[in-house]
Amino acid sequence: MDPLEVKPLGPRRRGRRRLRTPNPEVRRRIVDAAGELILEHGVPSLRIDEVAELAGCSVGTLYLYFDGKDEIFTALVVEQTAQLRARLNAASDGAPDHARAGQRRLAAYLDFVEQTERGFLHFVRAGSMETTAGDLNTWAFEQHANDLRPILKELLGPGPIDPVELELLVQSNLAVTQHLASYWLEHRDQLTRQQLEQFLGKVTAAVLLALRSS
Amino acid sequence: MDPLEVKPLGPRRRGRRRLRTPNPEVRRRIVDAAGELILEHGVPSLRIDEVAELAGCSVGTLYLYFDGKDEIFTALVVEQTAQLRARLNAASDGAPDHARAGQRRLAAYLDFVEQTERGFLHFVRAGSMETTAGDLNTWAFEQHANDLRPILKELLGPGPIDPVELELLVQSNLAVTQHLASYWLEHRDQLTRQQLEQFLGKVTAAVLLALRSS
Repeated sequence: MDPLEVKPLGPRRRGRRRLRTPNPEVRRRIVDAAGELILEHGVPSLRIDEVAELAGCSVGTLYLYFDGKDEIFTALVVEQTAQLRARLNAASDGAPDHARAGQRRLAAYLDFVEQTERGFLHFVRAGSMETTAGDLNTWAFEQHANDLRPILKELLGPGPIDPVELELLVQSNLAVTQHLASYWLEHRDQLTRQQLEQFLGKVTAAVLLALRSS
Repeated sequence: MDPLEVKPLGPRRRGRRRLRTPNPEVRRRIVDAAGELILEHGVPSLRIDEVAELAGCSVGTLYLYFDGKDEIFTALVVEQTAQLRARLNAASDGAPDHARAGQRRLAAYLDFVEQTERGFLHFVRAGSMETTAGDLNTWAFEQHANDLRPILKELLGPGPIDPVELELLVQSNLAVTQHLASYWLEHRDQLTRQQLEQFLGKVTAAVLLALRSS
């Protein structure tokens, strides 16, 4: 599904007017304003009037572009997923081998987590929303899975690979990385980034070895 | 924190009347009705008037017991977490060793997932809510972590254990199990329960071995 077609499910606003020539600049300002407010305060306290104010438009104008909070949030998740994928792929593209490609992706991911901080938690926690592409978090996971799958496949070696095991490996790797990154953000006093990276490196190597030799 | 004190954050309904002698039977019926509706339709479409109708009370009465959807949902998660813990602990208590205790917990967890099915997904996805005990999903994870930690500690063997590694191991195990269980529910046509159990068994053994020898 084209990412631009990912929209929240649920009742649409009735009688919504649509613009014949929407201004991409105004849309951009609305999405950016919502992103800024979410990074600071989270999704549950996001208010449309505050988004409009920060975007420098009226609430009426905002509703010409978006059906409401859920649609703005969905647009943000779709954009941020694309940006994060681009960052991770840029980090791994020049790597001399697949093992280092994996390490560089992890480092780039943790850079992102460190930069967005509580915003990362806000996004992960609000991301379960029914959309035209299914659950939004699951959709985002699937995007990252597409990038990670070929790398993990190579790391499993040249032998025959059980496609179910490969998929479970990809899903596990994404789930552990996301969860431990959140855990790290909430326990910065108990856990350094280095400890987290070492743990993930050790665990990934052990799992790859076990699946390779089976 | 006493689980009964876990309440959603956010503005309370103003001027809410409180019962001097609440009827535990009525409270029970309201929580059960909400649970039934969520299992079927998920949290976003839960409506207070439908909960009251199914519970056989008026909306006014319901509001004497709960501030609204979020408070009922929080009460449900707190209860279900306690019930699931009791089931998992009952499953592992009689095990002859810690390895089998771990296996039996996993089997009991997958039984639970299989029985609740889409309800499990609805709960996992709606569970991120700010409460007096922090994020509700994180709180529930912490409850299960308390039960799993001593088992994984034993499985790491008698040598010195890095407490940070132990915690990351507990968190990883919970995150992977929950995520792959959700993945399994959504891909029942591609993946048997046996394949899932084998994968989790193999991966857990490999990780334990790697952390033990390090």
